[in-house]
Amino acid sequence: MKDYTSGGFTLPGEAGYEKLTLEMAKKWGADVIRDSDGTKLSPEITEAGYRIYSTICIIREHNEFARSHPDAQQQTFLFSEPRTAEGDRLEILPLEGYFEEQFQLNDSPEAMAYWQVWDRTAGRLLSPDEWEYAEGRVTVRGCIPYHRYSVSFLAWRIWEEINMYNHTTNNWQSEHLRQLDPRHPEAWTYLKDWLRNWCRNNPDTNVVRLTSLFYNFVWIFGSDLRRRTRFVDWASYDFTVSPAALKAFEQEYGYALTAEDFIHQGKLQATHRPPTARKRDYMDFIQRFVAEKARTLVEIIHSFGKEAYVFYDDSWVGMEPYGKYFVSIGFDGLIKCVFSGFECRLCAGAEVPVHELRFHPYLFPVGLGGLPTFSEGGHPEKDAWAYWLHVRRALARQCVDRIGLGGYLHLTIGQDAFNDAVEKMAKAFRHLKDLQSRCAPAELPLTVSVLHTWGALRSWTLSGHFHETDWNPLIHVNEALSGLPVRVKFIHFEDVRNGALRDTDVLINAGRAGDAWSGGDAWKSPETVSEVTRFVAEGGCLIGIGEPSAAEGGDSYFALAHVLGVDRDDGSFACHMPWEFTEEDSAPFFTDGESIGKTEGIRLTDPETRVLRACGGTPVLTLHDFGKGKAVYMGGFTYSPAAARMLLEMLLYLTGTDGKAAGHTDQPLAECAWYPAERTLVVMNNSDRPLEVNVSLPSETVRTNPGAGEMCFVQI
Amino acid sequence: MKDYTSGGFTLPGEAGYEKLTLEMAKKWGADVIRDSDGTKLSPEITEAGYRIYSTICIIREHNEFARSHPDAQQQTFLFSEPRTAEGDRLEILPLEGYFEEQFQLNDSPEAMAYWQVWDRTAGRLLSPDEWEYAEGRVTVRGCIPYHRYSVSFLAWRIWEEINMYNHTTNNWQSEHLRQLDPRHPEAWTYLKDWLRNWCRNNPDTNVVRLTSLFYNFVWIFGSDLRRRTRFVDWASYDFTVSPAALKAFEQEYGYALTAEDFIHQGKLQATHRPPTARKRDYMDFIQRFVAEKARTLVEIIHSFGKEAYVFYDDSWVGMEPYGKYFVSIGFDGLIKCVFSGFECRLCAGAEVPVHELRFHPYLFPVGLGGLPTFSEGGHPEKDAWAYWLHVRRALARQCVDRIGLGGYLHLTIGQDAFNDAVEKMAKAFRHLKDLQSRCAPAELPLTVSVLHTWGALRSWTLSGHFHETDWNPLIHVNEALSGLPVRVKFIHFEDVRNGALRDTDVLINAGRAGDAWSGGDAWKSPETVSEVTRFVAEGGCLIGIGEPSAAEGGDSYFALAHVLGVDRDDGSFACHMPWEFTEEDSAPFFTDGESIGKTEGIRLTDPETRVLRACGGTPVLTLHDFGKGKAVYMGGFTYSPAAARMLLEMLLYLTGTDGKAAGHTDQPLAECAWYPAERTLVVMNNSDRPLEVNVSLPSETVRTNPGAGEMCFVQI
Repeated sequence: MKDYTSGGFTLPGEAGYEKLTLEMAKKWGADVIRDSDGTKLSPEITEAGYRIYSTICIIREHNEFARSHPDAQQQTFLFSEPRTAEGDRLEILPLEGYFEEQFQLNDSPEAMAYWQVWDRTAGRLLSPDEWEYAEGRVTVRGCIPYHRYSVSFLAWRIWEEINMYNHTTNNWQSEHLRQLDPRHPEAWTYLKDWLRNWCRNNPDTNVVRLTSLFYNFVWIFGSDLRRRTRFVDWASYDFTVSPAALKAFEQEYGYALTAEDFIHQGKLQATHRPPTARKRDYMDFIQRFVAEKARTLVEIIHSFGKEAYVFYDDSWVGMEPYGKYFVSIGFDGLIKCVFSGFECRLCAGAEVPVHELRFHPYLFPVGLGGLPTFSEGGHPEKDAWAYWLHVRRALARQCVDRIGLGGYLHLTIGQDAFNDAVEKMAKAFRHLKDLQSRCAPAELPLTVSVLHTWGALRSWTLSGHFHETDWNPLIHVNEALSGLPVRVKFIHFEDVRNGALRDTDVLINAGRAGDAWSGGDAWKSPETVSEVTRFVAEGGCLIGIGEPSAAEGGDSYFALAHVLGVDRDDGSFACHMPWEFTEEDSAPFFTDGESIGKTEGIRLTDPETRVLRACGGTPVLTLHDFGKGKAVYMGGFTYSPAAARMLLEMLLYLTGTDGKAAGHTDQPLAECAWYPAERTLVVMNNSDRPLEVNVSLPSETVRTNPGAGEMCFVQI
Repeated sequence: MKDYTSGGFTLPGEAGYEKLTLEMAKKWGADVIRDSDGTKLSPEITEAGYRIYSTICIIREHNEFARSHPDAQQQTFLFSEPRTAEGDRLEILPLEGYFEEQFQLNDSPEAMAYWQVWDRTAGRLLSPDEWEYAEGRVTVRGCIPYHRYSVSFLAWRIWEEINMYNHTTNNWQSEHLRQLDPRHPEAWTYLKDWLRNWCRNNPDTNVVRLTSLFYNFVWIFGSDLRRRTRFVDWASYDFTVSPAALKAFEQEYGYALTAEDFIHQGKLQATHRPPTARKRDYMDFIQRFVAEKARTLVEIIHSFGKEAYVFYDDSWVGMEPYGKYFVSIGFDGLIKCVFSGFECRLCAGAEVPVHELRFHPYLFPVGLGGLPTFSEGGHPEKDAWAYWLHVRRALARQCVDRIGLGGYLHLTIGQDAFNDAVEKMAKAFRHLKDLQSRCAPAELPLTVSVLHTWGALRSWTLSGHFHETDWNPLIHVNEALSGLPVRVKFIHFEDVRNGALRDTDVLINAGRAGDAWSGGDAWKSPETVSEVTRFVAEGGCLIGIGEPSAAEGGDSYFALAHVLGVDRDDGSFACHMPWEFTEEDSAPFFTDGESIGKTEGIRLTDPETRVLRACGGTPVLTLHDFGKGKAVYMGGFTYSPAAARMLLEMLLYLTGTDGKAAGHTDQPLAECAWYPAERTLVVMNNSDRPLEVNVSLPSETVRTNPGAGEMCFVQI
């Protein structure tokens, strides 16, 4: 039996702690040592026989160039808070309320051409002769009293947002880092030269680890500490904008984008909302630009005999791993930091040679949400283990090539429990990787299609980490699915109309009315609705969660109410009495009450709809036969191991599938992966106590006894 | 001191209980004896010197005529539950699911002209050649598979709804009563003759008490007992419809109404929803018709030297007491049954000579919601007292002329506690009436305008009784206002644009997004929004409750978010961080946490908005200065004596008014009315324990000691 003690592990080295670095490399079985942003490895480390990753943030740390070329900096559209006119004249300071260290007005003539002033009360765009600008101030004349006016404008972003965040959070005193826009011709020439130089000067580096590309996710700070972050969206494109980009877009697409396409009444266009057709065009435009520029960088790195890995965060915008152009960039590896199972699947499924996970917690004194992870009172081993329970079940389905850590290695000193935990996880990871190198885990003959606005582009993810999006039921669904033995596809509405349901067994739609995950206006399409109706009528299954298929203007609130057997009364059905119902004593599959949420106003549309669970008189889990198919409705869904089990049992019940084909445990809090060709069973105890777990396999039953939280590998 | 032992009281007499009738008439001080629906008084009663009311339901109890003139019966539009086509042909039984004893298809040629078939999936009206009808069955050809189809059709209503309800609830076995449509010329002639005959044959009757006019509120029964009532709306007009009415409408208005104007995708048009412009036209058309016909009846009654009172319930549709045509009918009295204070004000404020209240509970064995009021285990005196606590505070503001009871008098036998309670209430009523005959209660110089879609037409009421509409915050507001010493107006959006805010001190808008009370699309009018904005900016006050001024399509969810200082995030503001806030330790006015509800998603739009109360991180009571005015937001509002006090204190605080002018108690659970010209103070203890109540008056403070629940009259 192998001991899986080394390989596939990236250690963050630390200059000044050379001995520790090499010791920990040995303990954790590292084959790679990396630096971190802003640190440098010493020769004792780089020459110790390990492969070396070096971190580069390509658009940052060029302050001198930025100072001499201020027009090479990045920009964004912003809007002023609408102000009420009391007379016919109003003065507006556009940047009022924004963090003055992040933004600076772009009042150059080419930028001013994109500025707009809106009467937000009337929804009217003012003509340019109704307002004037001078010295940071917009004056609106001829106002209608008591209407509200707002200015949309371009601003320079003069502080790179990740640096700004670290600075303001940790009270750093160093110089603010600026960022360059690769669309600026001189900046682009400069950056390419800079990268060539860097590669030349860093001969020890095997892998250039890009953190990441050009455009940060949108993060807008306010001047008031009571709303320091005004807007943050991990997948919005506002920070890619510039007059040059807008002009290039107009030339290519034959129509011009305006400030309002971005500002959208001050709501901006968050990833959680369905995009306009114009935003879709713009995203594709940016994705091609980013891919083209990234390809050039990768070619430079390759020309020096180095590999190029990209870290999928920070300035990642436009390089979606499931986007149309990602493969064309030619990255050698994709690195994803993970808290959750869905992030493992997101990384593992991308088309790139090497998939690497960065585990949490980072080796930082203070962790997520200000917790004292590696400070006094912290328990980094508990945090690590909690994340591991999410991660390992996804790895058991689809493993990655490498794992690793980040941060300051010296923080591990004296943290024996954490160090041992990491060692244990690394071994388990290697075991799974080894198994999967020879044999795929058994999968049920069952394809789940998750339907939302973005489809494959946002496979597995919504917008950022779990805890950043956890008010959406879909992220909980994705997390549950990440460890289930089923095929998972992410499809959008055009996919549905193009026949994507033909190889779908269960369709899931989970979201809130009007959001990108439920679908919003997409459900106004009769073709989409009738295709899903056909799918279920002919024997397919549907799971709707929250406010699935909710759309304005139809004769029901859920466009699929007739299939689901439930609808929501948003007030439109005032005076219509609901069907009375009786909650069933027991459901035909395992259910977990704590994982099921409630949506107010749910009522039956068919007296035959079975109410498996209700809460305060409102159905929260229902089952409805429709034609030859079935539909489940859940008011909400919160991930937990029991929730994942409920989802699995629901899928088995709906499709009439026998779970044994992929191994089926008799304990809701235990799950397994079965590697038939290797005759190896991996049993995961997701509870905090030892369990006796009997696993049904296609031709036998295996009894195992995993300890609390343990993952055991059983050779049969 | 007067003893207020008699007058202004209507007693339900009962044949067979003549002695009891006269005894109770004495005990309660009755001056009028009435019969009830379906009962007759005996000569011992009618000749005992009391005035006599006789009950008539004019359109009911003419079964013989209905049988010989089936086309004189009333009708309605109905719709079939949409059915999914699996192939290109679909058969629909339009009446399936409806109560077959209430409805019968009207498939006469003139009715069929109004039938429609809809593809509800595509929202498309089928042309008449796409479907055919034969023998109760619609066949749709050329269906698009998996689209849903529904038939809208006319149906005869063959069972008068009040009779149907009593029948089905109490298992009556008598013949089903039918109802005639006065629009049918022969029926109308017949009804007039019948009334003349009736008047001739009932010389003892002084007052003909009409229950009520022609068209019942909408009450649609289903065939399945799990949804016996499918739809019930106390103020909808669907039951007034007929081909004749539709043709008359078309002739007058120059455009035709269609089935869809009533069916509205199967949602119908409930009073709680904003009406279409066509519905408004139709309502006015019906109101004029009802008034014209009612005037004829009243003239007949007058011609026999009798008076005509109308009971405002059942077949009341089209005779709104605050409608444009009510006064023209010439009623001598309006009778309103009451549970609540707002109903007293509704009655007391109508322009009609006599205002009479029917108190609850009725003398029925089983009361509201199946409670055993006058049966074993019942406590009618407790019920009566609970309603009285609501009613008396409204009477103290604006008294009526008469009160009374209804039902079977013999049920009072042995109910001494109830009988004494009624005696006490009757005396208190007479005392208030006497006071107000000589002096108006002092009112604060403060006008509250309640703003909603219906304005004055639905003054005080929403649609039916309190318990039928209690999910609406507005009914709680109206109930609270009914006993406060302020002027109250009900205005609609056109009133606002026409200057109604000029004599308004505090504007209230309370409702849910899209409903008639919040206003829905009415808030898309920039004129309305800027007029309210002006009003507050110049010193007016605004109270918004629930989802005030909510409208689709604006840059905020509440059109008045800038005035209120709060808005609701319905998901449109995803990724926008809310303002952090600190809940204040104490509010600048009395607040009652239990009366304040929560609306999810409320966030501050201005960091200066003061959060007086929050619940689970969501502001539920806020205060915002806007210009020279102020705005309060409440997430919800539930009536209680403490809630009414909170509202009063809020009004005083917002407007800077001194409550002493109308008398102000030092106890939240006590309120008062001050009759300055009579120097009489009425103090109401709304709690269940004795209170020491100090009342501040303009020039003195009076100490009183009302017992639990007591109302005391203090001469100063």
